[in-house]
Amino acid sequence: MTNMNPSDKALVPFVSVDNMMKLVHHIGVEPMLRGLADYIEADFRRWELFDKTPRVASHSAEGVIELMPTSDGEVYGFKYVNGHPKNMKEGLQTVTAFGLLADVSNGYPVLLSEMTVLTALRTAATSAMVAKYLAPKGATTMAMIGNGAQSEFQSLAMKAICGVDSVRLYDVDPEATAKAALNLAGWGMNVVSCKTAEESMEGAQIITSCTADKQYATILTDNMIGAGVHINAIGGDCPGKTELHKDILARSDVFVEYPPQTRIEGEIQQMPQDFPVTEMWEVINGTAKGRTSNQQITLFDSVGFAIEDFSALRFVRDHIQNTEFFMDLDLLADPDEPRDLFGMLQRATQ
Amino acid sequence: MTNMNPSDKALVPFVSVDNMMKLVHHIGVEPMLRGLADYIEADFRRWELFDKTPRVASHSAEGVIELMPTSDGEVYGFKYVNGHPKNMKEGLQTVTAFGLLADVSNGYPVLLSEMTVLTALRTAATSAMVAKYLAPKGATTMAMIGNGAQSEFQSLAMKAICGVDSVRLYDVDPEATAKAALNLAGWGMNVVSCKTAEESMEGAQIITSCTADKQYATILTDNMIGAGVHINAIGGDCPGKTELHKDILARSDVFVEYPPQTRIEGEIQQMPQDFPVTEMWEVINGTAKGRTSNQQITLFDSVGFAIEDFSALRFVRDHIQNTEFFMDLDLLADPDEPRDLFGMLQRATQ
Repeated sequence: MTNMNPSDKALVPFVSVDNMMKLVHHIGVEPMLRGLADYIEADFRRWELFDKTPRVASHSAEGVIELMPTSDGEVYGFKYVNGHPKNMKEGLQTVTAFGLLADVSNGYPVLLSEMTVLTALRTAATSAMVAKYLAPKGATTMAMIGNGAQSEFQSLAMKAICGVDSVRLYDVDPEATAKAALNLAGWGMNVVSCKTAEESMEGAQIITSCTADKQYATILTDNMIGAGVHINAIGGDCPGKTELHKDILARSDVFVEYPPQTRIEGEIQQMPQDFPVTEMWEVINGTAKGRTSNQQITLFDSVGFAIEDFSALRFVRDHIQNTEFFMDLDLLADPDEPRDLFGMLQRATQ
Repeated sequence: MTNMNPSDKALVPFVSVDNMMKLVHHIGVEPMLRGLADYIEADFRRWELFDKTPRVASHSAEGVIELMPTSDGEVYGFKYVNGHPKNMKEGLQTVTAFGLLADVSNGYPVLLSEMTVLTALRTAATSAMVAKYLAPKGATTMAMIGNGAQSEFQSLAMKAICGVDSVRLYDVDPEATAKAALNLAGWGMNVVSCKTAEESMEGAQIITSCTADKQYATILTDNMIGAGVHINAIGGDCPGKTELHKDILARSDVFVEYPPQTRIEGEIQQMPQDFPVTEMWEVINGTAKGRTSNQQITLFDSVGFAIEDFSALRFVRDHIQNTEFFMDLDLLADPDEPRDLFGMLQRATQ
């Protein structure tokens, strides 16, 4: 009997949904959001180093399946993610995801991880990391419009990273608001459930919009937005899906992750191709200006970029070391003699 | 204590390397090669239906990592694959791979599988399926030039699918030839080890070249190739990597998988952009001609295309049903209420 145990090289650490949730609680939700924001910020600082390609999308009538690859030259990463707005009605997640890191020098995967939970965390961490640069100084109140799966993560990230202590919830569906309010109870925030979008924005310095319909919608109209706020626009993230009236965009200074992708997928798909935007990585490394006055409306037109997933996977890779929150997966064939794949197969009968 | 067992929807069947090898032996190597060839042929017949994009490659100094997605409108598939020629010297596989199928209608993955072993099988099955259409009638002898990891699979596929009963092995490294000869003993083929490429081609109606250097090489020169043979060119499969002298291409009728990809990656990268080629799927569905005379040199300039991986994954999905050759992986978050991802996370502590 040949020893059929795969070698170390053949094994890839895998973080299941169950283990990801255990890892989050082991670290703590808020410390993990802060840790993710630090990793994302560090990767924004070295933005120029990354291989950047727009995501590779396979569209169908009902949704989209995307692959989002990137590399910093030493580590390669990609995320598989779907977006199917109609899933919710069937009791399924609108968005599910998983991701992988690999060693660029030999192409061997080094981490496979669920990314449904992780994407929710990294999206919120990115929003809050950006708000730290763009929101008015001393911002304490956020309007949270759209109380779906992302809303609690956004609220806690703004608390953990920006010091927001009050969140005003609004959704067209009061049940969604009730769910978010219930989930946020006990996290040390002042939570207010509102009946209209206008009400949710009273006294808010940060306005986060995150709704899920795959259509042009006008969640925010121009007259709803006063001077001096920061808009964190999450939900407009694919062609044909926007949330803000274009007049708001015209009055705002717009900040983006990666212009070639955001011009296709973000709120600015409503604007001409030469509509001026600032790349967020340039604000972070000091090359471009963020907020310059109290009266300015800043707008983060967030669509989610591969580098943020890469940062999140790096965080997970570094933090599962010496824990029990992963299992080794026999994903790679690794014969003793690399040219002898057939011999390995043949010996598997013995 | 909340029931933390993931629902069925959250679980994705996973076929490890160990289970793939068990599946191969359960079905039998030759029956499996025939089965894969049938699935691949069926998908070539409905070629026009597929989403076709050239692979998404991330190149580095030492190799390449690629994602190869495709979809037939109902099922989506992709393969992760690396190519690092220098790996062999470090005791690693030049090529490792894994792949995934997902349901287009909701974006949920339905199969995750190792594909290092599976790719070796599907590459050989594709070569033999094509040779069935292009090789001279009654071909019984193959020259196998390059005796690396793919060589035994090629030999057995040509036996199982085309009736080849004699294989003549040649490699610049005699140890590789000895390894292949040893592995092929007992499979009912006449195996001849040769000292030169010329010797390996004596009496061969099919010439398969599959070497691994990432460089322009001339494994076959023009004067080595007589009339009436079928050349199965596997090794020239990325930019800068070819095996055949261009004079051979000029004398041959060249058949390809997907011209936009083959013109970049295949042997025909040496030829002008308008060099005439025939798409193999048109031969299979009867729209284009295959071999038309005994004197003709046919050449399959194979680079490997996403649809072949899709077919192979379909085969695996269909054949693991009611077997023990997979495990369920907790890859997807699936809260009872789709909008309540945070609630699911929060309850995971209880």
